[in-house]
Amino acid sequence: MNEAEFIAALRRLPLHPAARDLRDDVAVLEFGGETLVLTQDTMVEGIHYLPDQDMGDVAWKLVASNLSDLAAKGAQPVGVLLSYSLGDATEAFVAGLEDVLAHYGVGLLGGDTVGANGPRTLSLTALGRASHTPVPSRAGAQVGDGLYVTGTLGEAMLGFEAMRDGTGGDAAAYARPMARVAEGALLAPNVSAMMDVSDGLLLDAFRMAEASEVSLSIDTAACPVADPARRMECLTWGDDYELLFALPAGAQLPVKAARIGTVEPLGFSALFVDGEPVTNPQGLGYSHR
Amino acid sequence: MNEAEFIAALRRLPLHPAARDLRDDVAVLEFGGETLVLTQDTMVEGIHYLPDQDMGDVAWKLVASNLSDLAAKGAQPVGVLLSYSLGDATEAFVAGLEDVLAHYGVGLLGGDTVGANGPRTLSLTALGRASHTPVPSRAGAQVGDGLYVTGTLGEAMLGFEAMRDGTGGDAAAYARPMARVAEGALLAPNVSAMMDVSDGLLLDAFRMAEASEVSLSIDTAACPVADPARRMECLTWGDDYELLFALPAGAQLPVKAARIGTVEPLGFSALFVDGEPVTNPQGLGYSHR
Repeated sequence: MNEAEFIAALRRLPLHPAARDLRDDVAVLEFGGETLVLTQDTMVEGIHYLPDQDMGDVAWKLVASNLSDLAAKGAQPVGVLLSYSLGDATEAFVAGLEDVLAHYGVGLLGGDTVGANGPRTLSLTALGRASHTPVPSRAGAQVGDGLYVTGTLGEAMLGFEAMRDGTGGDAAAYARPMARVAEGALLAPNVSAMMDVSDGLLLDAFRMAEASEVSLSIDTAACPVADPARRMECLTWGDDYELLFALPAGAQLPVKAARIGTVEPLGFSALFVDGEPVTNPQGLGYSHR
Repeated sequence: MNEAEFIAALRRLPLHPAARDLRDDVAVLEFGGETLVLTQDTMVEGIHYLPDQDMGDVAWKLVASNLSDLAAKGAQPVGVLLSYSLGDATEAFVAGLEDVLAHYGVGLLGGDTVGANGPRTLSLTALGRASHTPVPSRAGAQVGDGLYVTGTLGEAMLGFEAMRDGTGGDAAAYARPMARVAEGALLAPNVSAMMDVSDGLLLDAFRMAEASEVSLSIDTAACPVADPARRMECLTWGDDYELLFALPAGAQLPVKAARIGTVEPLGFSALFVDGEPVTNPQGLGYSHR
């Protein structure tokens, strides 16, 4: 059974009403008088990170990738639960965890520690409090909205290459990505749809279009990229953790972001890139999950 | 770095105020006008379950062990997040997950699916709503309280042996343990301390005594056991998922439970078993975590 079959099988199970789309690994539920946002991401040694990678960076990314999921919901992080496989470089892991928790002002709530029996698996659950309801989803884009993205795409790619090739270039965008928590909270009241761009802009835009049952038309020349000579690579590489959102015409844009396209009625394809329909998301991005 | 050193290192980190004891993997925090209880347990193939074990039973135990943590807080389960490593027998896993979620009326909230790169790691986060505040902890036992336990200890051990030896005996207590959710909610308003007995009665009692800074005195003859000829084995084997609690003198006992001892002032040892002090918890139980 592959992932798609597994997700399909899970949809037969007793689901919590908050579990609308098991691929969108963020649950939003009312609790007390507030709205709670829960997300869980897992990193496997040899799949999501390399055995020789700095474990402090791995800790940072584990937390930041979960906080990015909260950011896309406009949620303020409350705390995290860590499931940790014991192994080498635990000191470095704890130091990186300290850095990222301190940076975001988030507290460790608890978790579990297990022995490793082969490649290690690290899992984090992040708990957040919605700053605005209804909480944005990837499914709300409306025809006529503008499509926007924060930041510069491809910085993680260049950072990865600098690290891989030992060029001495800045690897921080790959090694210690930033979750757009403050931006997400400012955007949440204004957007009609929002998601983070962890798997590459074009692939994630395709997913937003499918979820919203619209077509998204993207002008690649309008997309801020880290290396214009490698524009399509920048738009299909993942790990940038920027925010992709649809903004209704006339709505205020409360953060720095680039308009990269338009939400259109569902046409021949969910995604049009420089006017060309993309019918198959294969090759649009890289699934790091 | 071993588990104890890891936990000690984590205590230097930014901790959420709800994270009082990182060994006690349950976080209790105010959210909205209610009290939220979060727990996370991870099972590793080859450590917490055998590769040839029925994956439906593994799914059941993964959920039940987390719900048992909620039960010890008197919390009603709200939903679970599952981090699943793809691999063999996923159909059986999903079927077992369906059984246990339906049995407890708990919904799947979301989670993450990853590829496996060796032995599989399965992690579950369970979210509950406290039915009574203050939420019981293992730290509240008071001198003069009675010490009680629900159910019969050693049933999981006999179930494990029946499965291992293929005797055809009933293995359900081991394969599909029950979390005492209803009992926990009834007990929460009355107890001074409560915890589940996942690692063996005597080891968990030692932990309650240490956390409460008292001595617990246990009369093994008063402990309900599945096989009186193997009484000490029944009291040191884990996986029974019963509730151990301290009840103030005169407080109502709202569920069926056996009085097995007394809370005493902190003496020479945290635990006295049939009058003998236990100074070293090694050998008192089995840490399945």
